[in-house]
Amino acid sequence: MECEAKAVKAAVIISGGFKETGSDGAYYEQQVVEIAHRAHIRVIGPNCVGIYDTNTGVDTTFLPASHMGRPKKGYISFISQSGAFAAATLDWTEMAGVGVSRVVSFGNKCDVDEIDLLHYLGQDPETRVIVEYMEGLTPSHGGRYIQAAKEVTRRKPIIMVKSGRSTRGSVAASSHTGALAGDARLYDFAFHQAGILVARDFEDAFDMAKTLAAQPPAAGKRILIVTDAGGAGVMTTDACSALGLEVPEPPQDLKSGLARLLPSYCSVHNPIDLTGDTDAERYQTALEALLGSPYYDAAIVIVMLQVPLIDLDVVDRLSSIARTFQKPIVACTAGGRHTMECARLLDEAGIPALSSPARAAKAMWSLVEYGQRQRDAEAASESS
Amino acid sequence: MECEAKAVKAAVIISGGFKETGSDGAYYEQQVVEIAHRAHIRVIGPNCVGIYDTNTGVDTTFLPASHMGRPKKGYISFISQSGAFAAATLDWTEMAGVGVSRVVSFGNKCDVDEIDLLHYLGQDPETRVIVEYMEGLTPSHGGRYIQAAKEVTRRKPIIMVKSGRSTRGSVAASSHTGALAGDARLYDFAFHQAGILVARDFEDAFDMAKTLAAQPPAAGKRILIVTDAGGAGVMTTDACSALGLEVPEPPQDLKSGLARLLPSYCSVHNPIDLTGDTDAERYQTALEALLGSPYYDAAIVIVMLQVPLIDLDVVDRLSSIARTFQKPIVACTAGGRHTMECARLLDEAGIPALSSPARAAKAMWSLVEYGQRQRDAEAASESS
Repeated sequence: MECEAKAVKAAVIISGGFKETGSDGAYYEQQVVEIAHRAHIRVIGPNCVGIYDTNTGVDTTFLPASHMGRPKKGYISFISQSGAFAAATLDWTEMAGVGVSRVVSFGNKCDVDEIDLLHYLGQDPETRVIVEYMEGLTPSHGGRYIQAAKEVTRRKPIIMVKSGRSTRGSVAASSHTGALAGDARLYDFAFHQAGILVARDFEDAFDMAKTLAAQPPAAGKRILIVTDAGGAGVMTTDACSALGLEVPEPPQDLKSGLARLLPSYCSVHNPIDLTGDTDAERYQTALEALLGSPYYDAAIVIVMLQVPLIDLDVVDRLSSIARTFQKPIVACTAGGRHTMECARLLDEAGIPALSSPARAAKAMWSLVEYGQRQRDAEAASESS
Repeated sequence: MECEAKAVKAAVIISGGFKETGSDGAYYEQQVVEIAHRAHIRVIGPNCVGIYDTNTGVDTTFLPASHMGRPKKGYISFISQSGAFAAATLDWTEMAGVGVSRVVSFGNKCDVDEIDLLHYLGQDPETRVIVEYMEGLTPSHGGRYIQAAKEVTRRKPIIMVKSGRSTRGSVAASSHTGALAGDARLYDFAFHQAGILVARDFEDAFDMAKTLAAQPPAAGKRILIVTDAGGAGVMTTDACSALGLEVPEPPQDLKSGLARLLPSYCSVHNPIDLTGDTDAERYQTALEALLGSPYYDAAIVIVMLQVPLIDLDVVDRLSSIARTFQKPIVACTAGGRHTMECARLLDEAGIPALSSPARAAKAMWSLVEYGQRQRDAEAASESS
C-alpha cells in the first residue's frame, strides 16, 4: 500500500512464503494481487530472484558477486519459474563468455506470467533467442501460451526446459511451485505445434541458446564434418545420424579436388579427417573446398587441440569462413585448460564451441530444426 | 630389426601410414608383426599416441604440455583405439583434478589388442575402473573379448564408448581404423551380457568413470535427493525416473522427525528442498536423518552455490557423511567459476560432482547398475 501511495508502476517481490507454502500463503498472495490491481502496479514474483537486465542495468538478484557471476550484454533472454535456474544461468554464461539480454525469474507469477513475458520478448529488439524453464501451465493458460509462442517462434527461437515430466517429478513440481506438471506427451505435442525447441536439461538448453544466438538457421540437414581426430569424427557422425541429420559423402569431383590439396594420408570422405598433424590452414582448405558447394548446408568442425601444430589462429579462420559462406558452423573441442581457453575465444568470435560430439550434434540439430520450422511456418502462412 | 639385435622386449609404434591407409600400409604392418613375433617383442600400435602411466612414469605421448595436461595418479585406466580420445581424456582429467592410472592408445593393434589389455588391467591392483573406446571387433575376436570382459566386470567396472553405431558412422570407422563396426544392437547385447556399462559419449564415460572410482556400488535403486533449488530437484527426479531409478517419499515418521529439525518452509518430501537460504549444516541434518535409514540406498545432493549462505565447508560435510553411512553420494552443482572450484574440491574429496541433473542421475545410475550386475554375477556363480 506504500507503493500505491507513491504511484509505483512495477514491483518485484523476491520473498517466499506465499502460494507455494499452502492456503495461508495463497491468501496473502491474493491480497497482494488485489492491491496491485487496484493501484495499476505490475508485479513480478513472489518467490523468485527477480530481474537481471544488461540493457537497463537493473539487477534485483540478491546473490553475492563472489558466488554468482554477472554476464556481459548479449542477445539471449531467459524466463524462469525457478530462481535457482536463473541464477545458475547467469553464473554459467558469465564464465563461458556468453552474453545475455534480459533474465526474469517470475516465481509464483501472481501477476506477470510467461505469456506477458513472451509477448514482450517477442517484440524486443535486444532479444534474439528466448530460453524458458517451466514446471507447468494451468489449464486456463495453456491455449493462450501456445498461441503466444507460435507468434514468437516465427521471428525468434524459444528453447524450453520442461520439468515435472515423470510421475514423481510432477509431484515434486507441485510441491515446488504448485504447478500442475501434467502429461509430458501433451506438453511435447503442444510445444512442437508452437515451433518450440525442447531441451533435455539446462546444459542442453544453454548449448542450443548460444548456438542459435550466434549462427544462422541451416537451410537443410546435410552436414559436413571436418576433424583432426578420426574417433571423434565417427562419434559425431553417430550423434548426427541419431538426430536425423545427414552426413553425406562428397561427390567424386569434389573429393578428387580436395585430395589434391591435402596430404595423401588424410581422408576425403565425410568426415574429412585431417589427422593429428594438421595445422589451422588445412581446416581452411577443406572448408573452402566443400562448404561453398551446394552439397552441404552446414559444418561441424572438430578441433582437438591436444595436437602439436594447431593453435589459436584456428579461431579467426573459422569465423572468417562462416562469414564468407553464410552457412552455420559449430565447433567441437574437448579437453583441459588450453581447450577451455580456445572454446571461450570461439564463443566470443561467434562460433559456438561444444565439449563433446553428442553436444555438438545437438547444437547443430537446433539450427537445422529451427530453420525447418521457420520454413514450415512460412509455407503454412502462404497457403492460408 | 635394430630392436631385435638389442633384445628389446616391448615397443610402441606411434607412426601412422600402416593398415589404416590401404593395402601397401597393410603389407608394411605385416612385416612389422613378423619381425616382432620372431624376436619376441610385444608391440603397441602402430597409428597411436602410446602409453601414459602414472605408476611407472612412462609417457610416450608426443603432445606438448602447453596443449595437453598430464593428470595425477589415480585408479582409472583408459584403453583406446583412438589416440585423440586418449589425449583428450588426459587433458580433461588433469583439469578436473581426477587421477588416472594407465592410459593406452593402441591404434591398429597389430600385436597387443584390447583382450591382452583387459586381462592385464583386470588383474592390476592400480586399476579400479576401466574405460574403453572401441570402433569395432573382428568376428574372430568378438567371443574372446566378451569372455575376457565378463571375467573382469566381476571385479571392477568396464565403461564402453562404442562408436560406429550408425550406418554412416560405421563407414567412417572403417576409414579411420579399418574396424568392422557392425550392428549396434549386437554389440549392445554382448556388452550387457558381459556386464559392461555403455556410455553415450566420452563426456558420459568420464562422468561414470570418476563416479565409479570414487564411490561404492549402490545396494539398490531407491534414491534420496536433497537440494537447495526446487527446480533442479524436479529435473533430477525426472532424470532418475527416466533411468529406472526410484525417488520414494520418506515414511511418515521420518518425515515428521525431519520436519521438526528444518525451518517450516522446507519441503520434507523427496526431493528434500532446503531452499535458497540454506547453509551447509542443513544438508547434514537432512542426510543424517534419512540416508542412515533402510529406505534409501544412495543420495544425490544438489548444491547450487549461487545462494549466499552456503560455502565450501559443504565439501567436508558431504565426504564425512559418505564415510559414516557407507552409501554412495553424488553431487550436482551447476554454475560459473566459484562452482567449478567447489566441484574440483568435491571430486578431490571423493564426492563426484556433476554439472547437470541429467549427468548426476546418469552417474548415480552407473553405481546402481554396476551394483546390480555384480549381484547378478554372484547369484549366477552360486547357482552354477
